[in-house]
Amino acid sequence: MTKLGIVGYGNLGKGAVKAIEQNPDTELVGIFTRRNPKELGCKGADVYSVDRAEEFVDKIDVMLLCGGSATDLPKQGPIFASLFNTVDSYDNHENIPRYYDEMNRVAQKNDKLCAISIGWDPGVFSMNRLISKYILPEGSDYTFWGPGVSQGHSDAVRRIEGVSDAVQYTIPIEESIEKVRAGEELDLPSHDMHRRVCYIVAEENADTARIEREIKTMPNYFEKYSTDVNYISKVELKNDHSGMPHGGFVIRVGKTGSERNNKEIYELHLKLDSNPEFTASVLVAYARAVHRLSEEGNKGAVTVFDVPLSYLSPRPAAELRAKML
Amino acid sequence: MTKLGIVGYGNLGKGAVKAIEQNPDTELVGIFTRRNPKELGCKGADVYSVDRAEEFVDKIDVMLLCGGSATDLPKQGPIFASLFNTVDSYDNHENIPRYYDEMNRVAQKNDKLCAISIGWDPGVFSMNRLISKYILPEGSDYTFWGPGVSQGHSDAVRRIEGVSDAVQYTIPIEESIEKVRAGEELDLPSHDMHRRVCYIVAEENADTARIEREIKTMPNYFEKYSTDVNYISKVELKNDHSGMPHGGFVIRVGKTGSERNNKEIYELHLKLDSNPEFTASVLVAYARAVHRLSEEGNKGAVTVFDVPLSYLSPRPAAELRAKML
Repeated sequence: MTKLGIVGYGNLGKGAVKAIEQNPDTELVGIFTRRNPKELGCKGADVYSVDRAEEFVDKIDVMLLCGGSATDLPKQGPIFASLFNTVDSYDNHENIPRYYDEMNRVAQKNDKLCAISIGWDPGVFSMNRLISKYILPEGSDYTFWGPGVSQGHSDAVRRIEGVSDAVQYTIPIEESIEKVRAGEELDLPSHDMHRRVCYIVAEENADTARIEREIKTMPNYFEKYSTDVNYISKVELKNDHSGMPHGGFVIRVGKTGSERNNKEIYELHLKLDSNPEFTASVLVAYARAVHRLSEEGNKGAVTVFDVPLSYLSPRPAAELRAKML
Repeated sequence: MTKLGIVGYGNLGKGAVKAIEQNPDTELVGIFTRRNPKELGCKGADVYSVDRAEEFVDKIDVMLLCGGSATDLPKQGPIFASLFNTVDSYDNHENIPRYYDEMNRVAQKNDKLCAISIGWDPGVFSMNRLISKYILPEGSDYTFWGPGVSQGHSDAVRRIEGVSDAVQYTIPIEESIEKVRAGEELDLPSHDMHRRVCYIVAEENADTARIEREIKTMPNYFEKYSTDVNYISKVELKNDHSGMPHGGFVIRVGKTGSERNNKEIYELHLKLDSNPEFTASVLVAYARAVHRLSEEGNKGAVTVFDVPLSYLSPRPAAELRAKML
C-alpha cells in the first residue's frame, strides 16, 4: 500500500484524487491546500492547511505536488523534498536542469526520493523520444502537440481589451504529420506544425475586428501561425469548451541498412479527453515507483529516464514477464 | 566503447552488422557462425567458427545472440550466458518464464548480465503495453500486428503440395483499429483483428483451386481468418516480396474521472521497412545498456522492464535531462 498526500487542489490535484481511487494499492491520506480547508469542497477526503503538512511525515509515503511550474513548484518542491518523497509535473523544459539540481540536492541531504517532471510532456513523450532516438540513431524526430487547450495562449487572448472569456486550441497540421511520416527530413518551425483556433466571448459592443487583428499579430503567441478566430456566446463556451482535452504525437523516422534506404517509423500518439486526469494518472504510477525505490534505499531526484518500467506496476516481476512481455 | 560479437549470421545477424555501423560507440569484434567462416560472404568483419567464441571472453563486452527462438536460443543462450554478457531476441512468449529462469540461473552463477527478449514484440511493444496499462489501470488494450511478413505462415503455405514458394502478409483490419480507438470495449479474437494475404508461386500444372482451399481451411493458421490468395511468378515474388516489412499497433484506451467518462487513448505505431534491421537496432541499444549495467556490478537476466531508459543512450544523464525530457 502506498499512502499519498496531495499538495494543491487545482485541476491536477482533482485529477489525482480520481486517479488514486482507480489504483487499489494506493490510498489518499489528505489534501493540503493554501486555501481555507473548510471551503475546498472535496467530498470524501481529509483536507488540511498546507502549513500542517509536516505533521504527516510519518503518515505519507509520497507527496504528489500538484502546483504549477511557474511559481508553485520552484518554491514548494524543495520545501517538500526536505520532508517527503515527492512526485511532481514540473514542465518548464528550459529550467529542468536547475530544478533537478535543487531537488536532487535537498532530497539527497534528507534521504528522500523525488521524481520530477512526470506527466506526458515531459514524461511519456520524453520516454518515447529517448527510446526511439537511441534505437534509431540516424533519422529525425518531431513532437506535435494537440488538438488541445493551451492555457498560456487562452490567457493571452483573455488579456485583450474587449475579450470577456476565451479558449485557444493548438492543432497539429495534418499535412505536416503526413510529410514527417513519409520520411521527409524537414526543419519544421512550430508554426508549420501547428495551427491555432480561438473561441472568444466578446464584451458587448467590442470591436471584434480589432480583437482579431490583435490576436493574429501577437508576437510569439500567434504571429506566423495560421489562426482562426470564432466568436461565441458565454453559454456556448461553457457547454462546448470547458473540457481540457490534449495530446499529440512523437514521431521518429529512422533510416537503417547499409544504404540507409530502409525507413523505420516509430510513432506515439496520445489523444486525451482530460489532460489533468491523464497527467495525474502518470503521477500516481510514478508515486508507486518512488515508494518502492525509496524503500530500497534510493534517494535524490529522478526522472522518467531513471525508473525501470517494472516499478510502475504493483505486480511481481515474474508475472509481468509472463503476461506483459 | 562497447565491443560486440554476433552469434549467427541470418537476417538478424546481418541487421546487427549494419546497426553497429550506425552506433559510433560500439565496435564489431567478430561474427561467430556454425557455417564455414570462409564462405559467409561478410565483407569488412572478422568471421570465426562458433567453436572459437570462448577465445574471445576478454575481447567482447556483449555478445548479440542472433539465432532463432525455436531451436537456437534455448541451446545457445545458456552456453553463451556462462561466458559473456548477452542480448537476445527470444520471442516465444509462452516459454519466456522458463527461458528467463534458465538464463538468470546461468548468468548469476557466472557473473554475467543477459538481456533477453529484446526487439519490438517482445520489446518496444511490451514497454508501451506496460507503461499504458499501469498509467491507465481501468481500460482495455489491444496489440495489432502488421502489415508484415509472417515467417511461420509463409512456411506453412510453402509446405502445401504444388507450392513452389510463398510469402504471407498479416494485415491489421482497419475497421477493428477504428473501433478500438473509438473506445469500444471489444473481446477481439485475432481473426477479427487481422486478415491474411498470400502471394504464391505455384508449380507447373499445380491445382491452384486445391491449394487455395488447403490454405483457407488450415486450422489455427488460416481457418477463421479472411484470407486472400494471389498467384504470381517467381520473378514477381523476388522483385516485390523479398523485403521484410513489419510493424503494428499497441493501443490502450483508458477511462478516467469519477464517472470514468473520459477516454485517454495511448497508441504506439511501428511501421518498419525492415523487421530484422529494426530488431537488430534494438539489440544494439540494449547491448550498450547491458555493458554499462554489467560494469556497475549487475548480473543475472533482465528484460526491457528492468533497464532504466537512460542506459539506452551513450549520452550523460544531465544532457538527456536538458535536451530530451
